[in-house]
Amino acid sequence: MTERNTSTDSPEKRAAGIAAAGLVSSGMVVGLGTGSTVAYTIKELGRRVKEEGLDILGVVTSYQSEMLAIDAGIRLTTLSQNPELDIAIDGADQIDSELRAIKGGGAAHTREKIVSMSARRFVVVADESKTSTQLVKPVPVEILPFAKELAINKIRNLGGEPKLRSAVKKDGPVITDNGNFILDVEFGTIKDPEALALQLSAIPGVVEHGIFCNVDELYIGKKDGSVKTVPRQK
Amino acid sequence: MTERNTSTDSPEKRAAGIAAAGLVSSGMVVGLGTGSTVAYTIKELGRRVKEEGLDILGVVTSYQSEMLAIDAGIRLTTLSQNPELDIAIDGADQIDSELRAIKGGGAAHTREKIVSMSARRFVVVADESKTSTQLVKPVPVEILPFAKELAINKIRNLGGEPKLRSAVKKDGPVITDNGNFILDVEFGTIKDPEALALQLSAIPGVVEHGIFCNVDELYIGKKDGSVKTVPRQK
Amino acid sequence: MTERNTSTDSPEKRAAGIAAAGLVSSGMVVGLGTGSTVAYTIKELGRRVKEEGLDILGVVTSYQSEMLAIDAGIRLTTLSQNPELDIAIDGADQIDSELRAIKGGGAAHTREKIVSMSARRFVVVADESKTSTQLVKPVPVEILPFAKELAINKIRNLGGEPKLRSAVKKDGPVITDNGNFILDVEFGTIKDPEALALQLSAIPGVVEHGIFCNVDELYIGKKDGSVKTVPRQK
Amino acid sequence: MTERNTSTDSPEKRAAGIAAAGLVSSGMVVGLGTGSTVAYTIKELGRRVKEEGLDILGVVTSYQSEMLAIDAGIRLTTLSQNPELDIAIDGADQIDSELRAIKGGGAAHTREKIVSMSARRFVVVADESKTSTQLVKPVPVEILPFAKELAINKIRNLGGEPKLRSAVKKDGPVITDNGNFILDVEFGTIKDPEALALQLSAIPGVVEHGIFCNVDELYIGKKDGSVKTVPRQK
Repeated sequence: MTERNTSTDSPEKRAAGIAAAGLVSSGMVVGLGTGSTVAYTIKELGRRVKEEGLDILGVVTSYQSEMLAIDAGIRLTTLSQNPELDIAIDGADQIDSELRAIKGGGAAHTREKIVSMSARRFVVVADESKTSTQLVKPVPVEILPFAKELAINKIRNLGGEPKLRSAVKKDGPVITDNGNFILDVEFGTIKDPEALALQLSAIPGVVEHGIFCNVDELYIGKKDGSVKTVPRQK
Repeated sequence: MTERNTSTDSPEKRAAGIAAAGLVSSGMVVGLGTGSTVAYTIKELGRRVKEEGLDILGVVTSYQSEMLAIDAGIRLTTLSQNPELDIAIDGADQIDSELRAIKGGGAAHTREKIVSMSARRFVVVADESKTSTQLVKPVPVEILPFAKELAINKIRNLGGEPKLRSAVKKDGPVITDNGNFILDVEFGTIKDPEALALQLSAIPGVVEHGIFCNVDELYIGKKDGSVKTVPRQK
Repeated sequence: MTERNTSTDSPEKRAAGIAAAGLVSSGMVVGLGTGSTVAYTIKELGRRVKEEGLDILGVVTSYQSEMLAIDAGIRLTTLSQNPELDIAIDGADQIDSELRAIKGGGAAHTREKIVSMSARRFVVVADESKTSTQLVKPVPVEILPFAKELAINKIRNLGGEPKLRSAVKKDGPVITDNGNFILDVEFGTIKDPEALALQLSAIPGVVEHGIFCNVDELYIGKKDGSVKTVPRQK
Repeated sequence: MTERNTSTDSPEKRAAGIAAAGLVSSGMVVGLGTGSTVAYTIKELGRRVKEEGLDILGVVTSYQSEMLAIDAGIRLTTLSQNPELDIAIDGADQIDSELRAIKGGGAAHTREKIVSMSARRFVVVADESKTSTQLVKPVPVEILPFAKELAINKIRNLGGEPKLRSAVKKDGPVITDNGNFILDVEFGTIKDPEALALQLSAIPGVVEHGIFCNVDELYIGKKDGSVKTVPRQK
């Protein structure tokens, strides 16, 4: 995995992120994803709160998303107080033509999945490079540190090749916001994401894997600044 | 749930616990479960270490099991250093005639499951009152606090009635050794434990449920001090 | 420690709890403590929100306090979004004539201390039985599990006799909302609480101790339903 | 903070790391620090275990140190089972002429401090670039996420300038092995490290700071491969 870049301006990410913010209206409770594309959504929502009096509540998916939302001036609530969200908007590492996505490059996919499944509508924002006919990227899997060896063995039995994600700014492995490890698992081309999702969930010590099969709509940002939307096929 | 009693002497628990300790021999790495019955196993292993020179390494499943094992003088290792155990011995809250068990009354079932699945042989020790033709007790489910409302909703969709376990010696809910909540879920008679296990695992925010389908052998202690052993039917 | 009782109605706790709620007015951000006395404050604030249109934001100190506040209909925020509170109201296990308090019977004192120190005014509510000329109750100390033995040794060097708090509804020790242990430390009569506080904080592995020296005002509920207020001596 | 480099061979780190391993003999329980210099110690101890039959038990200070020790073939134990260590060996980010050290660049200083204070002798290994007449580097401070704003305010009151450490391989802040945040605090020249240590410990929400005043002996590796040892002045 290469270093995650959230600093450089990206017209396609910006286009997708801002377009999806247009789905939000006053009175909504909004799930706020994590990563560089949805960061544009959060900033745009904050702009509308300040400039247009948009009245919303946000639910964050990570410490990063919390910090961005607070900077943007979005009032936050929690799933405990507002268990049902009107919409959740988030990025993805890869998404296929049937809107199955791989997430977790930012190690935030556990809370992201919980938030997205608490929403009536789940929208993914991404630049064109994230779309693919099939899912081929490594799948991030959050595991309890205690279960590392067992999870590695069971994942290998499923045909995956797991690699413990190492940190750069601390010694040893990356630790998630929940205090756990991330395995980045190479599966080659994932032919049946729904089946793999169930198999991964059944492994003891797996907290959550990065396969998402609950995307309702995809906003793809292009280099010319246009946005293509793809609804889920019923 | 009534208060867990680990203090009173119980001849049937003692009989089962000590009998299972007989399966352990020098050179083994042994998974040490949590609870009042396997506590007899741990004490007996400690006695054999001291009096008979039994040379084993233990892997604990909880802070309780760690403290008991250290008191008993059993040298401990970890799954990181010894990922494959020769045997794991643990209790159960209920176990049916096909050796499917419900565990988690002690809130330790996540590590217990990881340890038991890391063992080549998993033996459950229990008194007669724990055996049942079918599983009818509430199923403890460890969940991320962040996912409480979502998990409750999804579990209700499966036909369960979840109740957040409250603590007695602290305010608010019981917190597990992993920092999470426990839902005790009433399902009535569980007709297909294997299927329910998969459904529970697939819920985001569920860390681990208390249904165990990997028991190899059951040691049942009776009031007359005798022990009946039941191997898994192939 | 005896079982914590939050179910029985107590006129003196009720009197103190409700009186302190009178310090809260619209526009305030309010720290909401944990325990049976401040539970009356939370319920009263909720009543005023519903019946009188009181417009406040709450910051909770525990999962218990969060659940009560949500049930009461108090909108919640976080210290991240609102780092400075107008007031914090909380209970105490014991409080002396100079308003030094022992807290932590509910194992929530770490977050309680952080919240109370984030408030411009910190008010303690208690029934008469909690007041004392000197602090003599055991001091709860939250410690990292990893540091248990070191903390016990260092605390004994300070003249304390620590006892690991055991759970009732789970096997093994009580785990705090932060995932740690509680030592209940008997010090006899604590002659210099401020000095002891510094000594305890300096021990590696001590997350937070239950000595509070930042109480601004005490509301004492009496059996006749009257309330005595005691301001801090400057 | 620049990226931590543990991959390139360094003759001075190697010299110090290997020399300190010479202090270890059979029968000892040894605290194993974290970082690139003590990694040489761990590898050398592993070599002696395999080639010379050295019979020791290790206690690790981080997931990194655990993985290295297991790879090296060192049998591990825990502070719970062996609360008193014969020696602990660890690196440092900076160390002054009175053997006061700053640690925590690897975000492991909380467990490192607990381990070092559990040892009868604490030896620091470092290359020459780490020595300094005075401590001037930023001090890493591990804090509870819940206490971020309070800790920042209190640290600023002490004259420090804190900066939340950001992660590279996950979105948002670095999370420690204990699930917490790291503030890197610029204090300029630290004139009285012992006093600052007490002040930092007293801040609620501070889990542990990176100032170590318990070093017994320093092993300095030089570019020519020689090692200078500096005992603590009594």
